[in-house]
Amino acid sequence: MFEQLKQACYEANMQLPDLDLVVYTFGNVSAVDRKKEVFAIKPSGVPYEDLRVNDIVIVDFNNHILEGDMRPSSDTKTHAFLYKHWKHIGGICHTHSTYAVAWAQAQRDIPIFGTTHADHLTKDIPCAAPMADALIEGDYEHNTGQQILDCFLEKNLNPVEVEMVLVGNHGPFSWGKDAAKAVYNSKVLEEIARMAYLTMQINPGAPRLKEALIRKHYDRKHGNDAYYGQGC
Amino acid sequence: MFEQLKQACYEANMQLPDLDLVVYTFGNVSAVDRKKEVFAIKPSGVPYEDLRVNDIVIVDFNNHILEGDMRPSSDTKTHAFLYKHWKHIGGICHTHSTYAVAWAQAQRDIPIFGTTHADHLTKDIPCAAPMADALIEGDYEHNTGQQILDCFLEKNLNPVEVEMVLVGNHGPFSWGKDAAKAVYNSKVLEEIARMAYLTMQINPGAPRLKEALIRKHYDRKHGNDAYYGQGC
Amino acid sequence: MFEQLKQACYEANMQLPDLDLVVYTFGNVSAVDRKKEVFAIKPSGVPYEDLRVNDIVIVDFNNHILEGDMRPSSDTKTHAFLYKHWKHIGGICHTHSTYAVAWAQAQRDIPIFGTTHADHLTKDIPCAAPMADALIEGDYEHNTGQQILDCFLEKNLNPVEVEMVLVGNHGPFSWGKDAAKAVYNSKVLEEIARMAYLTMQINPGAPRLKEALIRKHYDRKHGNDAYYGQGC
Amino acid sequence: MFEQLKQACYEANMQLPDLDLVVYTFGNVSAVDRKKEVFAIKPSGVPYEDLRVNDIVIVDFNNHILEGDMRPSSDTKTHAFLYKHWKHIGGICHTHSTYAVAWAQAQRDIPIFGTTHADHLTKDIPCAAPMADALIEGDYEHNTGQQILDCFLEKNLNPVEVEMVLVGNHGPFSWGKDAAKAVYNSKVLEEIARMAYLTMQINPGAPRLKEALIRKHYDRKHGNDAYYGQGC
Repeated sequence: MFEQLKQACYEANMQLPDLDLVVYTFGNVSAVDRKKEVFAIKPSGVPYEDLRVNDIVIVDFNNHILEGDMRPSSDTKTHAFLYKHWKHIGGICHTHSTYAVAWAQAQRDIPIFGTTHADHLTKDIPCAAPMADALIEGDYEHNTGQQILDCFLEKNLNPVEVEMVLVGNHGPFSWGKDAAKAVYNSKVLEEIARMAYLTMQINPGAPRLKEALIRKHYDRKHGNDAYYGQGC
Repeated sequence: MFEQLKQACYEANMQLPDLDLVVYTFGNVSAVDRKKEVFAIKPSGVPYEDLRVNDIVIVDFNNHILEGDMRPSSDTKTHAFLYKHWKHIGGICHTHSTYAVAWAQAQRDIPIFGTTHADHLTKDIPCAAPMADALIEGDYEHNTGQQILDCFLEKNLNPVEVEMVLVGNHGPFSWGKDAAKAVYNSKVLEEIARMAYLTMQINPGAPRLKEALIRKHYDRKHGNDAYYGQGC
Repeated sequence: MFEQLKQACYEANMQLPDLDLVVYTFGNVSAVDRKKEVFAIKPSGVPYEDLRVNDIVIVDFNNHILEGDMRPSSDTKTHAFLYKHWKHIGGICHTHSTYAVAWAQAQRDIPIFGTTHADHLTKDIPCAAPMADALIEGDYEHNTGQQILDCFLEKNLNPVEVEMVLVGNHGPFSWGKDAAKAVYNSKVLEEIARMAYLTMQINPGAPRLKEALIRKHYDRKHGNDAYYGQGC
Repeated sequence: MFEQLKQACYEANMQLPDLDLVVYTFGNVSAVDRKKEVFAIKPSGVPYEDLRVNDIVIVDFNNHILEGDMRPSSDTKTHAFLYKHWKHIGGICHTHSTYAVAWAQAQRDIPIFGTTHADHLTKDIPCAAPMADALIEGDYEHNTGQQILDCFLEKNLNPVEVEMVLVGNHGPFSWGKDAAKAVYNSKVLEEIARMAYLTMQINPGAPRLKEALIRKHYDRKHGNDAYYGQGC
């Protein structure tokens, strides 16, 4: 019944080790079906080399399992929360990729230093503060979704443009129109995080990218008159 | 007679180059048989690409060779010491992996900076002090085991929870319920060491992970009500 | 009609992922035919694994498409500008390789610290300043070419010798007698950028390479009495 | 006539790209025949993927070519000098490996920080000063050999024990009983250089390894009562 959705979810998950974004079980990707209001997600704690399409679990937005013999990712409620509140997104990816985690552990937004960054978003990549203890001890994974949402509200960010976030002391989440785009954004985030780290080591006073370059690079790829790519 | 034990030891050793944890002969893994009170260990100085199952050496807890034509790892007495004193462990792994060695050479515990760390242990990864000269000049490898044990006693650490240590100016040792888990812990340690290094470079004042997050992440994976993984 | 040119362009582009210089679509290479005054260039936004020889686009120096069904690289006008002004060059390569981008984002020339650098050029690798806003908002990619040209004029550099540049806050461009040499120069630049970064971290006061060594290494490879290589 | 020598030289050279010690043509290995007083060396400027056994050049200690159609490595005179003066060595390796070059460009000896280092030598890895201008402008490659020799005399180092050196602002040379061992030493040097770099970043005040550990680790592998390895 959910074969296509499970296949898309499986393929997106299997990209993570190929892209050097995970070791062992340190990540998970989900793919949503907006009509049926369900999503497919990696089972918890299964190494990528053992993962099979049929291991993928189907869950609804209230975290009920509809199909699958395995327990879904321990981060499932975070995925459900984001799908429920951000109706435009089609896939979510979570990893513990090295440089993104380092920035999250440093509790620092990643400054926009260059056009590689501006090709994808016009803002610093936000780092959500670690949660209050009561929220951690409560419904932790649900509250992680809330923490991301609050961070975007507080910083006045639009998740249609900014498709990635660092959860402080934890690691990156990314999303996109589908699961493959969410994985793409995780890889881009890792690469931007690495470039920004090196930039600051070479020049601790490196300035933010100037506004005209931010607009130019973002708009030539995503604006109304975009001329990057093949227009599809 | 020890075929299964040798096979398990061999397979765990062969993971080290695949996981980028060793070059040349810079590591060794052992696997114990608790009933027979013997362990299988890599022969000394044999490159991984030349290693065969039948090269694996069987040794008892008093360092007597029971089977095998080759000399066992020069670190054999450290393995024997740990097996004798920590009766719950089933495998031990020693490497000179780059980031873990760097922390050991810096003589620094690895601070718990994030959830990747807390998913595996709740404490800073301890760095045992370099040994006194008399111990180095005495039964060095046996005393290395003692140094690890003393470090755990002094810092009040439980080797059931903390399955890894840095030996100051030397490198990492890890252990676990079996040899495969010991190797897993070596890879996790290397990754945590790398993330912690980068974290401190980005923010030299980066705080330790807050206690509520440490407990939450450790317990969801290892606590009585753990809900990470497939419960097996 | 342009089969050979397209093939050379295709092969040079396909080296970029093999040399770890790009992820996804973060780069482009072109190859020129000086007699016909046209060049072949990668189509915009096409991932390397999907790229086919016939996707390569043929463009003249005024940016008119002569052959090809796809839109050429968004950086096409920068290539055209450089081909028009520097009549000796046969190929151009642009990437977002990690260490070169980090220096570009740091807005720093890469100092000549050693013989690896002097084997290829005798000057610091220049970092062109980010453009004035009016130029960014105007014909951006054409003006990027102008910015590179102005940088070389201002610093009195000869593009016959210095076959690489960093565009501030953006990334590296390199060129050479053909597309393959342009790619070679991009890889060399990335390696020099990485070595220079590490050098400054180890010794923030590291001196520039002394003039006699610069001359010796450059001349033994490129001088009238060069004796490096097979003389072809 | 020199088939075996050329084969050994070829195989040692081909290890360099596999061990990530070179890109393009940035390295060369030679192998000596002490009876015939000749050595086999890589031809100059030939990429590793194009190198064939029959391209290897045979040269005597006075730099006369005895066999081979190609020009030998531009560093041939450095090899000849070292073979002539250090009669115990059987192979020499020169690379531009990243971390070793960074220390050479920083003009710093690599401090002995840990047992990985002491397993191979008991001294800091020496960095020879850049040569005086007159020597650079004279017989440069011959004088590079002299510079290495002088460095060992001045620092009272024994090339039987210390099988590696950094030539300031240039890069590493290593040697050993045969060409394979020289390559092994280059890889070990690169790994030690990387560990030492990270150690200093984590703890700028990291102490040198204590003398008792230096002796213990060196002697258990190289001393009269060595017990590391299989005794062959």
